Amino acid sequence: MIRLYDFSESGNCYKVRLLLAELDIAHELIPMDILKGETRSKTFLAKNLNHRVPVVEWPDGRTLAESNAILFHLAEDSSLLPKDPWERAQILQWMFFEQYSHEPYIAVVRFWVFSRTLDEHRDELSERMRQGYHALDVMETHLATRSFFVGDRYTVADIALYAYTHVAHEGGFELDRYPRIQSWIDRIRSSPKYISIDQ
Amino acid sequence: MIRLYDFSESGNCYKVRLLLAELDIAHELIPMDILKGETRSKTFLAKNLNHRVPVVEWPDGRTLAESNAILFHLAEDSSLLPKDPWERAQILQWMFFEQYSHEPYIAVVRFWVFSRTLDEHRDELSERMRQGYHALDVMETHLATRSFFVGDRYTVADIALYAYTHVAHEGGFELDRYPRIQSWIDRIRSSPKYISIDQ
Repeated sequence: MIRLYDFSESGNCYKVRLLLAELDIAHELIPMDILKGETRSKTFLAKNLNHRVPVVEWPDGRTLAESNAILFHLAEDSSLLPKDPWERAQILQWMFFEQYSHEPYIAVVRFWVFSRTLDEHRDELSERMRQGYHALDVMETHLATRSFFVGDRYTVADIALYAYTHVAHEGGFELDRYPRIQSWIDRIRSSPKYISIDQ
Repeated sequence: MIRLYDFSESGNCYKVRLLLAELDIAHELIPMDILKGETRSKTFLAKNLNHRVPVVEWPDGRTLAESNAILFHLAEDSSLLPKDPWERAQILQWMFFEQYSHEPYIAVVRFWVFSRTLDEHRDELSERMRQGYHALDVMETHLATRSFFVGDRYTVADIALYAYTHVAHEGGFELDRYPRIQSWIDRIRSSPKYISIDQ
């Protein structure tokens, strides 16, 4: 059985939990408290030199880090990852967009709230909010003519973007401004095997 | 023929130029001056809502953004992208590492130098340098037992990491501290079809 090194509040970890639920993949959850520095132990660094969760570990000792690389790998041969090369290219485009232009703003501000460090970051906040809203604007525009991000069906690109988008309000982002994003969130939630981030 | 919307000083664009050279893929370069806001025109936003280069455009009008998604797509069926699913998973792991834990520090500090805006960012500099050095530490440790990042041969993971690493000194990072990274840089430079960032 695979193991998922997990931090319950992390959207990046939730992406993997949601995928495992959608695909009925048996796994063992290993909770890690990043606020207590548990991912910086020597044992954990042997699994991911970059001391971040999620990490997936196979029974033979192989480990894989980076949430979106994990999604892409575990979804192979499932409905969540189409075979078509052009659809795969677009899925990766949205996954890199998520890690570069979305997560560093929307997830980071939420983390500051969650870790009660918002006051330490007051001078950075307006720029992070501006960039976070830009990412949401890009998503809203893309969804004008689509139900899902790629190929008009539920894929790992949606899981990657959903994880931090649906909790963006916890960082102070007003999702009310984005009706298409809200409908897309509802579509993902209506998937029969959906689990929530705190489930 | 494909078109590459390109900014010559961008390492993200250079990744694609280097791949196109390595694979002898005919293309037309469309220079864009990001400092003059050329990627924010209405025409360009229709190609990439997220107003960034590189973007590759096909003759039928399809466009693809995000440097690492472009590398992964264009390298299909070449020696730079192995077929093995586990090697592909590791390549994506390093590509997401590059965009999340490397580029925002090493490339951004170099950009501040290049765009003469370092003074405006003095308060952020030490943290960006710290995180940049952490990324280089991770790479140096990984290269202790390997010649290349994945599968011990030259792949798109190396191209993704090489682009900003080999010019990290332009942002003030001391590459002298990293002998294995330097040997790896030399290996990439010795590829017969290699082109430099200013070529």
